[in-house]
Amino acid sequence: MHWKHKDLIDIDQLTHEEIATVFTVADRFMEVSSRPVKKVPVLKGKSLVLFFAEPSTRTKTSFDIAGKRLSADTFSLTKTGSSLQKGETLKDTALTLQAMSPDAIVLRHQASGAASFLARRLNCSVINAGDGRHAHPTQALLDAFTLRQAWGEAFQGKTVLILGDIAHSRVARSNIRLLTMLGVKIHLCSPRTLLPSGVHTWPVTVFNDLTSACKGVDAIMCLRLQLERQKAGLLPNLREYAMNFGLQPAHLEKAAQNVRIMHPGPMNRGVEISSSLADAGSSLVLDQVASGVAVRMAILYLYLTRESALV
Amino acid sequence: MHWKHKDLIDIDQLTHEEIATVFTVADRFMEVSSRPVKKVPVLKGKSLVLFFAEPSTRTKTSFDIAGKRLSADTFSLTKTGSSLQKGETLKDTALTLQAMSPDAIVLRHQASGAASFLARRLNCSVINAGDGRHAHPTQALLDAFTLRQAWGEAFQGKTVLILGDIAHSRVARSNIRLLTMLGVKIHLCSPRTLLPSGVHTWPVTVFNDLTSACKGVDAIMCLRLQLERQKAGLLPNLREYAMNFGLQPAHLEKAAQNVRIMHPGPMNRGVEISSSLADAGSSLVLDQVASGVAVRMAILYLYLTRESALV
Amino acid sequence: MHWKHKDLIDIDQLTHEEIATVFTVADRFMEVSSRPVKKVPVLKGKSLVLFFAEPSTRTKTSFDIAGKRLSADTFSLTKTGSSLQKGETLKDTALTLQAMSPDAIVLRHQASGAASFLARRLNCSVINAGDGRHAHPTQALLDAFTLRQAWGEAFQGKTVLILGDIAHSRVARSNIRLLTMLGVKIHLCSPRTLLPSGVHTWPVTVFNDLTSACKGVDAIMCLRLQLERQKAGLLPNLREYAMNFGLQPAHLEKAAQNVRIMHPGPMNRGVEISSSLADAGSSLVLDQVASGVAVRMAILYLYLTRESALV
Repeated sequence: MHWKHKDLIDIDQLTHEEIATVFTVADRFMEVSSRPVKKVPVLKGKSLVLFFAEPSTRTKTSFDIAGKRLSADTFSLTKTGSSLQKGETLKDTALTLQAMSPDAIVLRHQASGAASFLARRLNCSVINAGDGRHAHPTQALLDAFTLRQAWGEAFQGKTVLILGDIAHSRVARSNIRLLTMLGVKIHLCSPRTLLPSGVHTWPVTVFNDLTSACKGVDAIMCLRLQLERQKAGLLPNLREYAMNFGLQPAHLEKAAQNVRIMHPGPMNRGVEISSSLADAGSSLVLDQVASGVAVRMAILYLYLTRESALV
Repeated sequence: MHWKHKDLIDIDQLTHEEIATVFTVADRFMEVSSRPVKKVPVLKGKSLVLFFAEPSTRTKTSFDIAGKRLSADTFSLTKTGSSLQKGETLKDTALTLQAMSPDAIVLRHQASGAASFLARRLNCSVINAGDGRHAHPTQALLDAFTLRQAWGEAFQGKTVLILGDIAHSRVARSNIRLLTMLGVKIHLCSPRTLLPSGVHTWPVTVFNDLTSACKGVDAIMCLRLQLERQKAGLLPNLREYAMNFGLQPAHLEKAAQNVRIMHPGPMNRGVEISSSLADAGSSLVLDQVASGVAVRMAILYLYLTRESALV
Repeated sequence: MHWKHKDLIDIDQLTHEEIATVFTVADRFMEVSSRPVKKVPVLKGKSLVLFFAEPSTRTKTSFDIAGKRLSADTFSLTKTGSSLQKGETLKDTALTLQAMSPDAIVLRHQASGAASFLARRLNCSVINAGDGRHAHPTQALLDAFTLRQAWGEAFQGKTVLILGDIAHSRVARSNIRLLTMLGVKIHLCSPRTLLPSGVHTWPVTVFNDLTSACKGVDAIMCLRLQLERQKAGLLPNLREYAMNFGLQPAHLEKAAQNVRIMHPGPMNRGVEISSSLADAGSSLVLDQVASGVAVRMAILYLYLTRESALV
């Protein structure tokens, strides 16, 4: 089977079958990271540019490790000190990078649509590592891959609550797309000021009360609260936010028996999630990180060998 | 043939024949970057320090990619967080680096003469990646290599216009040296305040009017305008600068038929070059970037294998 | 012989015999850095995270070079732009890193005890690259390894003076532990304000006068003066400090014949050490840097192959 996509911009580009392929390949690479020699030569001689115009050590390191474990060479660019800071346009920076013949550019950018904008202009693969509020497809894939480790293939009929600042969250958007496609029902819970304006058209049920929102859910995805939201007047104060929308053990009483807790990190313990839940046995937070490396290895492998890959 | 130089400080160290060797080797490495496996093992086990005391992601990434495609290990240092910032002298920083047994140090530094200063004190190779206003030899080599792709070996009798802030430009200085050696006639065009004081002794023709300067030229090298020059009182305002010294399509009417447009990047579109010319078919801007990787691979190869290389 | 330690937190974890093993292995790796191909495949497929929450290009580069010369993949994290800056706790950052399956984390942190804190929580090796005022074991090992190159195994009965800001120095603390274990007598010399409060319980002789402190010593370790100490009111002024506690050639008159001068770098020439002594034949400053790479290669080798290594 040939992988037919050049770029990964968002989840809706992928069919159900392609997502299953990503997971199957990730299963194999999960095993590579547990070996004494954590390296396979499949991307030897490939050049991978990690272009993070917005800071994110966590995601960048995950891609960096994924690339190197496949034997690719990686090159990190951040906005600081880059030509973007000298006033160069994103397009010129990207065309310049492309002229150095990378095989893929992994892009994190504050502008929604940035990855798509580049993908249309570049011959190399563009992998979206988060663009504004728009999408963060590898996060959604790793989240679903993590749930699949817990649930097996039985996503149909499950319910997942996404909790927190939905309005500004690309993680929420990409997860809603992917989970819905896999047959999962979505609950959202958020202060009204942090709900996106068109949310009533989304295939979700919206709750303003966290206890009701948790009823019967099989997993809860907490979102990171950007503490800047308070300055922007979207929140009264953090203490009040934590009281109403911070996940506490008591909220889980009416959830499903084996409810799983997730967070994309970094966590504000005591704000969006209580410290005890972050460390609880039901927490998948660190599994998400481990899945992240495996899923990104799968993505890099599929997109960078698409002309030759027999999956 | 053995490469006899330890260091690359400026173009005038190289004979015409040595420059031809650089280009021949770069031709071969140009091909490496177009392979599916973009890597050759010729510098395996060599350590390359990229020491950029002045920020320049573009040049640093070009050297980094060049080094890794030859299988060298690269180590990036920037001024921020380095010992230079803690008050250590450049010499001590360099001797410290040398004690870690690198094979070469690629140096970008704001002080003219910095690369030469280190070359006299270190046993390892020093490659000048730009020192103050003095020199930027790999930029000149990649510019000439790019013109050679367009012109073949026929440099003799061609005319090149260098346009913009000549006074502060190491790119201009190194290009004038190299192109003159290859038999090219040089036009300069610049506001009087951005002309170097001794320019009347240079082997160039100086123009204050851009239309006259373009007459009959085969290529135009636009220089980046450091926007700080305005604050320093060297420019009245950007709009006036752009009107008088920004390259526009109309300026090319009296140029040679196939005039080529170049820019070392990053470009200030609408200031030193119009956006339409930056993207025109005659623009070699992205070819320069691609040439940069190949020429730097050639330089690293020649200098780091000089004891063993049979070219 | 199997290496039995998972973590390197401080010198007192190591037996005399284990220190001898570190030195024997470092001897071998010293030779690797002098080869044309400076690379051995012993850590191929190992992932090494260099997590420097406090800036230190010198130590980070030394570990980076050490790791890559052993064929490990290295991943650099600094505090800037890391999750720590976004308010994540050190423990969460470390657990996140661990979930990416590194084989070791090299940690530099401003808090005394940080390395030990992580070592108790992580399955991978933790190598302390300096924690607050507590310890800097690889610096002590490289200092002793450097002295061993000068002295052979004859440490017994030697005297070493440690000069400068003892109170804030992890270098001093780790060196005192290691040198004492090797049978060396320690002199300390420092302004009273820069002596640690419990120093009378240490196995050292304290001097307030530098000329007396130098009498009969076989080596002098100058410590870097953090220039911030003056602002904190611990020093009257730098000139006075340099006059009383800056090492000058005249101080060496009553020292042992072949007295050696050391400094962990970066040096404040003219403050804690005169420029002429820094460059003198008796100076081991650059030998310390070269030893640093070899000793860190030995440490990485021993700790990362501890399950399989036959030394």
